[in-house]
Amino acid sequence: MRNSLAGTARDKLLFTPGPLTTSLSVKQSMLHDAGSWHFEFNAKVKWVRDEILRIAGLSREAGWETILMQGSGTFGVEATFATCVPPEGKVAVLANGAYGERMALMLQRLRIEHVVLRAPENMPNDLGALDRTLAADRAITHVAIVHCETTTGILNPLEEAGRIVRRHGRRYVVDAMSSFGALPIDFTTGIDYLVSSANKCIEGVPGFSFVICRREALLACDGYARSLSLDLLGQFKGFEKNGQFRYTPPTHSILAFEQALKELEQEGGVAARGARYRQNQEALVNGMKELGFRTYLDSRVQSCVITSFCFPDHPGFAFDEFYRRLSDKGFIIYPGKISQAETFRIGTIGRIFPSDIEALLSAIRSALREMEII
Amino acid sequence: MRNSLAGTARDKLLFTPGPLTTSLSVKQSMLHDAGSWHFEFNAKVKWVRDEILRIAGLSREAGWETILMQGSGTFGVEATFATCVPPEGKVAVLANGAYGERMALMLQRLRIEHVVLRAPENMPNDLGALDRTLAADRAITHVAIVHCETTTGILNPLEEAGRIVRRHGRRYVVDAMSSFGALPIDFTTGIDYLVSSANKCIEGVPGFSFVICRREALLACDGYARSLSLDLLGQFKGFEKNGQFRYTPPTHSILAFEQALKELEQEGGVAARGARYRQNQEALVNGMKELGFRTYLDSRVQSCVITSFCFPDHPGFAFDEFYRRLSDKGFIIYPGKISQAETFRIGTIGRIFPSDIEALLSAIRSALREMEII
Repeated sequence: MRNSLAGTARDKLLFTPGPLTTSLSVKQSMLHDAGSWHFEFNAKVKWVRDEILRIAGLSREAGWETILMQGSGTFGVEATFATCVPPEGKVAVLANGAYGERMALMLQRLRIEHVVLRAPENMPNDLGALDRTLAADRAITHVAIVHCETTTGILNPLEEAGRIVRRHGRRYVVDAMSSFGALPIDFTTGIDYLVSSANKCIEGVPGFSFVICRREALLACDGYARSLSLDLLGQFKGFEKNGQFRYTPPTHSILAFEQALKELEQEGGVAARGARYRQNQEALVNGMKELGFRTYLDSRVQSCVITSFCFPDHPGFAFDEFYRRLSDKGFIIYPGKISQAETFRIGTIGRIFPSDIEALLSAIRSALREMEII
Repeated sequence: MRNSLAGTARDKLLFTPGPLTTSLSVKQSMLHDAGSWHFEFNAKVKWVRDEILRIAGLSREAGWETILMQGSGTFGVEATFATCVPPEGKVAVLANGAYGERMALMLQRLRIEHVVLRAPENMPNDLGALDRTLAADRAITHVAIVHCETTTGILNPLEEAGRIVRRHGRRYVVDAMSSFGALPIDFTTGIDYLVSSANKCIEGVPGFSFVICRREALLACDGYARSLSLDLLGQFKGFEKNGQFRYTPPTHSILAFEQALKELEQEGGVAARGARYRQNQEALVNGMKELGFRTYLDSRVQSCVITSFCFPDHPGFAFDEFYRRLSDKGFIIYPGKISQAETFRIGTIGRIFPSDIEALLSAIRSALREMEII
């Protein structure tokens, strides 16, 4: 009874890789209509762009820019490729999950030459293969990597790969969708473009992505854009010209993001946020192990963002029923996306705390009992 | 004193072509976090897609679909071209303002052959030129039009042009960004794709556009897509497969839009909304004429969406000051975008009523007096 009330009286908690559970104050900041051309809104956009650089440890003075791009994170990654790879360019994609494969699909649609360096889904990217490929293929101009591959929750060797890319003198594109804002990222290892999204570790709501980039790299891309909407350089020039988005921005999502950035600072910044997510993830894994679950990944490569759990080896387990029972109790988990193993996923990012993890574990225990698994 | 309090105690009213002033209840529906994969959210997406068809007087049974697309309206228009024009296709663009020109720019970026049929900004599209061009150039596969060109506020001959396109057996793409939901649109005149946006006459918040299309037309476009994010057919197949967006949707914008659609119905549907906007626009023009302003367009081609006013012929008038004084009083108007005349624009759509127009007119009178124009 108590559980079913909890499910209707408030929003179900989201244990997903995003959109996430956000704070009420972040959502309340959307109770306003802002004029997208108006100077007061433009000032907020400027603050947001500068604040993203600040939490990355970067600055405009040091040659960095942040470009906001309408749409989901995928739009930001595709905008980077569509704008920044020259007509004769070639991209090497490091892939060990669905998001690496999605990059390859984008490049295919954009008719950009590319090569995919695949590793098994439970293994980090293969740095040896990267080094050999860059040495052998001088046509490759860009290397792309997914920092935290939420297909599994694996953490890829962003900085080690960056040093290899830099040594070979190529451009480096990073999908840091699920890591930026929670994991420290060393930009000095050779990152040229890093893409993340409003509804991930900054704990805003969906509506736009952002690309942190070296100004000189972006400015060198004049004339390459294969799309008008997804023209990252055009978007930058728009901001430079009059502080505005070229095309209608998601004004409410940006108001929410402004508040989310303030709340990140109040929490203690990237270090404190990452520490909370690690506490969440450790509490989750410990509790799930007690319930008999196995993690898909080795703990040495597991991120604090999302964890894949293998289906229990029990004939009574059906994921759809398990999912629905947890939903009825007010908890939304995430299905698996791994091609070679039967798994489901539980995210540990967003405005959730170890106490929420305990509540989730309690609901999982109840669901398993109802299903007569334990 | 009263005016400056009004400016801070509530949001400034937006007299723009969008993002617009929306109802509090629309914004309050964003005080929730929805799981983008969750069946409860998917049911809302389905309802929204069906409801858009219903207010258009269409149905899935009759062969129509609605595809939601992340990003602004421009993303929806570009997605339509990027997905639906075959590799050897050619588009004739009817242009009499910035949005027609923007279509040409998209086609250029997408490397799609095109021809632009231009008319002066104060004249509707040239139907004779369209007819002659389609007769002469068999390579043209698609014709594109902007229904209400908010550059000026002119209403273009959507249905007459559609009959010509149909007679010549070409596909017809309509940018109905600022008209859908307020002006009746006759789809039987040959429309294949019609694009509009969440933050226009439905009075939702920005975050996505939507494309109403003939299913058979869309399904015939397999393999054409020049982008992954902006692949309209891929997006449709995603909805068909599991009811989900392929990539993270703007969940909060969709919750707001669901509420906005309900409020459109409560108001009396498209006819009642259009009537309110016409009342707004008539009250505006009458009041502005009393203050000595001239409209840029002839009233016979003027839409109820947005009106361009010529700068007063007075040495003391400076638009920036005028704009800022109105902003200080709590009213946000819109700058001009016309290349050949000095104008500013005032929008009459959104959750604003004739009483708000009277308040705006009163503020304009005060501003003009302060500037010693009257």
